[in-house]
Amino acid sequence: MKVNVLRLDHRRVRDARITTHVCLTARAFGASKVLLSGDEDKKIMENVKDVVKRWGGEFEIEYCKKWDKLIEDWKKHGGEVVHLTMYGEAVQEVTGKIGKSSRDKLVVVGGSRVPSKVYQEADWNVSVTSQPHSEVAALSIFLHTLFEGKEYDIDFEGSELKVIPSAHGKNVLTHDKNLK
Amino acid sequence: MKVNVLRLDHRRVRDARITTHVCLTARAFGASKVLLSGDEDKKIMENVKDVVKRWGGEFEIEYCKKWDKLIEDWKKHGGEVVHLTMYGEAVQEVTGKIGKSSRDKLVVVGGSRVPSKVYQEADWNVSVTSQPHSEVAALSIFLHTLFEGKEYDIDFEGSELKVIPSAHGKNVLTHDKNLK
Repeated sequence: MKVNVLRLDHRRVRDARITTHVCLTARAFGASKVLLSGDEDKKIMENVKDVVKRWGGEFEIEYCKKWDKLIEDWKKHGGEVVHLTMYGEAVQEVTGKIGKSSRDKLVVVGGSRVPSKVYQEADWNVSVTSQPHSEVAALSIFLHTLFEGKEYDIDFEGSELKVIPSAHGKNVLTHDKNLK
Repeated sequence: MKVNVLRLDHRRVRDARITTHVCLTARAFGASKVLLSGDEDKKIMENVKDVVKRWGGEFEIEYCKKWDKLIEDWKKHGGEVVHLTMYGEAVQEVTGKIGKSSRDKLVVVGGSRVPSKVYQEADWNVSVTSQPHSEVAALSIFLHTLFEGKEYDIDFEGSELKVIPSAHGKNVLTHDKNLK
């Protein structure tokens, strides 16, 4: 099962850091790709590609001009759509069912105003608590619940940098690709 | 066990939205209080208090001028300090041990530059994946792992608004306190 993330309604200045966190969280928690809708923001895309280059793995980022067409095509090709919203069904109750189907998942993460079409088109509207907090938190918890912690074992291949977990301090392995 | 969150090095303009997400995530995932260090930012504090007023519960927010004194006092009063950092020990390996002690926890969430003193003073340096992503994601996953999903059952008392989870659409109960 492949998981892609669609970030709706990105606004270049206001959302720059939150959207960056959405992208990096998608990568760290096992998604394959993020699609950015709203403003086309080349800086964010470069930043994310730079993280992938240094920290490894095959994560992709792409601009998506028409999110509604993307959702339509995704479903047409047999994929399922999961929309994260505080109004949806509880993550702890529905994610088991969602994970049972091996069909690819498109996880839709809202901006400030999510069109009602998204609620209707989604196979699943999922809430991570029914409280207002953060699309970044919601995405991490949903992916963690979907992958059941297996995302902790991802091997981000081809990295230049790798952290060795440490009780106190920083311990980073560097690997210069040019010395291969 | 009470859990407070200390947000280091908040910068008024650059961090406004991320810090707001940190605060709301702390509240939604069962922390009692957030302490903001760095720039004093009354607007964020008002926004968070407004969320508490509308969505219930007893979550507090406070400005903290001297984070090093706060950490020192916390430990002096028997509390433990957990610092979330991508360089720390893996959340899935250490959180069980951290939760076994019923002592109050101060969860420290970094800004851009975390002084080495924080790494040294922390009882636990904990990483949520060893990849770069987001302090918001790290906080949500750490609290979710610490509370073992019990945070989903929190009753945010005295709320004006309450979401009724729904498969498609929005379903919100409103409760006007003035009509009591």
